[in-house]
Amino acid sequence: MSLDDVLARIDTDLPAATDRLLELLRIPSISTDPAYKEDCDRAADWLVADLQSMGVEAEKRATPGHPMVVGHVGEGKPHLLFYGHYDVQPVDPLELWDRDPFDPAIEDTDKGRVIRGRGAADDKGQLMTIIEALRAWKEVKGDWPCRITFFLEGEEESGSPSLIPFMKENADELKADVAMICDTGLFESKTPAIVTMLRGLLGEELTITAPDKDLHSGMFGGIAMNPIRVLGKVVAALHDDTGRITVPGFYDGVPELSEELEAQWQGLAFDHASFLGDVGLSQPAGEQDRTPLEMIWSRPTCDVNGIWGGYTGDGFKTVLPSQAHAKISFRLVGTQDPFAIRENFRNMVREMMPEDCTVEFSGHGAGPASGVETGHPMFEPARQALSDEWQVPAAYIGCGGSIPIAGYFQTLLGTEPMLVGFGKDDDQIHSPNEKYDMESFHKGIRSWARILDALT
Amino acid sequence: MSLDDVLARIDTDLPAATDRLLELLRIPSISTDPAYKEDCDRAADWLVADLQSMGVEAEKRATPGHPMVVGHVGEGKPHLLFYGHYDVQPVDPLELWDRDPFDPAIEDTDKGRVIRGRGAADDKGQLMTIIEALRAWKEVKGDWPCRITFFLEGEEESGSPSLIPFMKENADELKADVAMICDTGLFESKTPAIVTMLRGLLGEELTITAPDKDLHSGMFGGIAMNPIRVLGKVVAALHDDTGRITVPGFYDGVPELSEELEAQWQGLAFDHASFLGDVGLSQPAGEQDRTPLEMIWSRPTCDVNGIWGGYTGDGFKTVLPSQAHAKISFRLVGTQDPFAIRENFRNMVREMMPEDCTVEFSGHGAGPASGVETGHPMFEPARQALSDEWQVPAAYIGCGGSIPIAGYFQTLLGTEPMLVGFGKDDDQIHSPNEKYDMESFHKGIRSWARILDALT
Repeated sequence: MSLDDVLARIDTDLPAATDRLLELLRIPSISTDPAYKEDCDRAADWLVADLQSMGVEAEKRATPGHPMVVGHVGEGKPHLLFYGHYDVQPVDPLELWDRDPFDPAIEDTDKGRVIRGRGAADDKGQLMTIIEALRAWKEVKGDWPCRITFFLEGEEESGSPSLIPFMKENADELKADVAMICDTGLFESKTPAIVTMLRGLLGEELTITAPDKDLHSGMFGGIAMNPIRVLGKVVAALHDDTGRITVPGFYDGVPELSEELEAQWQGLAFDHASFLGDVGLSQPAGEQDRTPLEMIWSRPTCDVNGIWGGYTGDGFKTVLPSQAHAKISFRLVGTQDPFAIRENFRNMVREMMPEDCTVEFSGHGAGPASGVETGHPMFEPARQALSDEWQVPAAYIGCGGSIPIAGYFQTLLGTEPMLVGFGKDDDQIHSPNEKYDMESFHKGIRSWARILDALT
Repeated sequence: MSLDDVLARIDTDLPAATDRLLELLRIPSISTDPAYKEDCDRAADWLVADLQSMGVEAEKRATPGHPMVVGHVGEGKPHLLFYGHYDVQPVDPLELWDRDPFDPAIEDTDKGRVIRGRGAADDKGQLMTIIEALRAWKEVKGDWPCRITFFLEGEEESGSPSLIPFMKENADELKADVAMICDTGLFESKTPAIVTMLRGLLGEELTITAPDKDLHSGMFGGIAMNPIRVLGKVVAALHDDTGRITVPGFYDGVPELSEELEAQWQGLAFDHASFLGDVGLSQPAGEQDRTPLEMIWSRPTCDVNGIWGGYTGDGFKTVLPSQAHAKISFRLVGTQDPFAIRENFRNMVREMMPEDCTVEFSGHGAGPASGVETGHPMFEPARQALSDEWQVPAAYIGCGGSIPIAGYFQTLLGTEPMLVGFGKDDDQIHSPNEKYDMESFHKGIRSWARILDALT
């Protein structure tokens, strides 16, 4: 049986594959909120059962956090590992969803059919493209293309605290020739792409305390320090007027683009006006001397992801609060050291505290950036397979998001990661009304079948 | 029957008076939160019934917001009006309360007996000192001391939106020789005081919008403007490095202290180290060239009372939010014009917006500061009555909080306000575990009986 038979099988099985994805999407596996711990467990069980039904020796492996799903099947070179994550982002603000985020559905939109629901694109829909491709392959060919390992995580959206220990303890089992990671997107929603440059991520939460209790701003306003005022100064100090980040030593290890990559990126003709216009913006807000593609792919960033303090309900309350809080993240590139930046950031904030204020920090993950070796012999065949499916030459691109596991495969296992995904810019991952295009799902499955054929 | 008989009656009736106050405290009349609208109504009904039981012709009067309670009784000069408010502040953060805020109780503490619960000091306990004094007077003397009007409001903690229209429409009915307002405190918790200088209040809420939806900070971080970053710059810009407020024209109409008042305040020997030490602070945080008493009584202030945006739950979410919000209040003095400051503040913030950001404002009350004419013939007798009860010379003082109604009595009705109250610095009004000392309640009732006796 040929590749065409596998592709045909994928086409006819699409309704059943979609039903399976909808089933998985109904499980609210929000990893960052302890209230959903059992649901994360349930999502892992669902995947184990699905893999076992295909004949994969799959099992759930306990960690101090949410479990890993590991499965093995097939034999022969190359040894391909497939990584995905079954956990999803929180859904707030819930009132902005047009439907229950965990009651997914197929919707017809003016841009085509979409699968709507939390996790549809990030990452349940994407990880199922791999599983469905292998299911079709096995059903049509009666055997596996090569030795396959599945490695599915449940903590990707909460900083992957168990990942490094698990990979170290199970290094021999997880080492492979290539680790296929399906958690990225198409270029500008149209062109298939292999991501070769990934930003790292450093997360910090800080709490500033001024008075030891909430005060009445009439009685104490003017004489008592307000922690929100201090936090405002901290937030304002993070960027200078040109958009540069002011943490001391922050740009240590930030490389300039090679001329080759600069030329290739210019060839991509990124339409930043449309990229920003889709979200109601027009002005690139990063360092003023950088191009828009550099801002999202190759330059480091600092964003406040959350801020709160005092009275935030309806109406007004003249409180002078005891505490103010912020969650701040840094996207890292090149060889920026997340641990050095964490220390420098904390020291910078500590030095800004007035005598009466204290600040406490807690860290939320710290992963360096990573770059991928495109000279690896499997990359060009994979790129060709993608080009064949999408009828457009596939591109090597950067990715603004952080997928720390790509770096861990390199540093902990010596396994080269290959990042291929089919998300689109308007998928609204991490936002209300997340969706995954039926085209992404269908052609995504077909793409993996072609890649498997090309690599074996 | 003499004043001493009235005072004796107050002493023996204290347990019953306390029970009545506890009953009123059990009604969660939070005016700022629409969920408690019926409870506000219930508190008004309770007061009408209590006044009627004393023989006062009392009734609930509808407004577009929460109702007013108005009652009339007695005849002859002077015509005394008594003002208080039956609404209370919200109770969050609820987890910091040691008991249900609306299940009040008498507690023995190392500083004496206290009445614990939301509204105990602000203002239900205080307004009941007036009602209990008049109840005892009537029961002992069989008649009223003079013509009395009760005027009890239910929107004081939410900006009193209905107050000005109501006072204008009912001006003839509410005009009096003096308006007694019981919503202030003792000086340093020990010395009885009449407040003669009150700060005004301007409340503003602002929402900054950057992208039109929440974004993923990996995909958009670096290129998309983050509204929290813009809000941080706004908050940081409100004060300069010397603690001065930077809103253009803000200090127009801020008077310097008269030499006489400056001398009197120096005589009060305010212990700012202890005032700040009680709330875990040590450094006066206002304008660096001003004394601590000026900072809380005679200088204008700006405080952020609430700030929020992005993800504020447990864990981390790498969202680049669409919106960021703040509630900001200004305390005003002298002849500062709240409406001019509102306009200047809004223009200042608008000018700080980057091209892609919009800002929307909503106002939460705007009342000017007010000063009281202590030359009025009733002030010295009242001050002497307070000194007699507390066995310490009563003081004329300033008040950092804002009681806009004092100014409205002057400007709308031509009625001089007299601000007398028995709150203490550690009452934790607007905070968790609010309390009112039994001493404040008991001697407060007795103080009013002495004042009634002195003025009639």
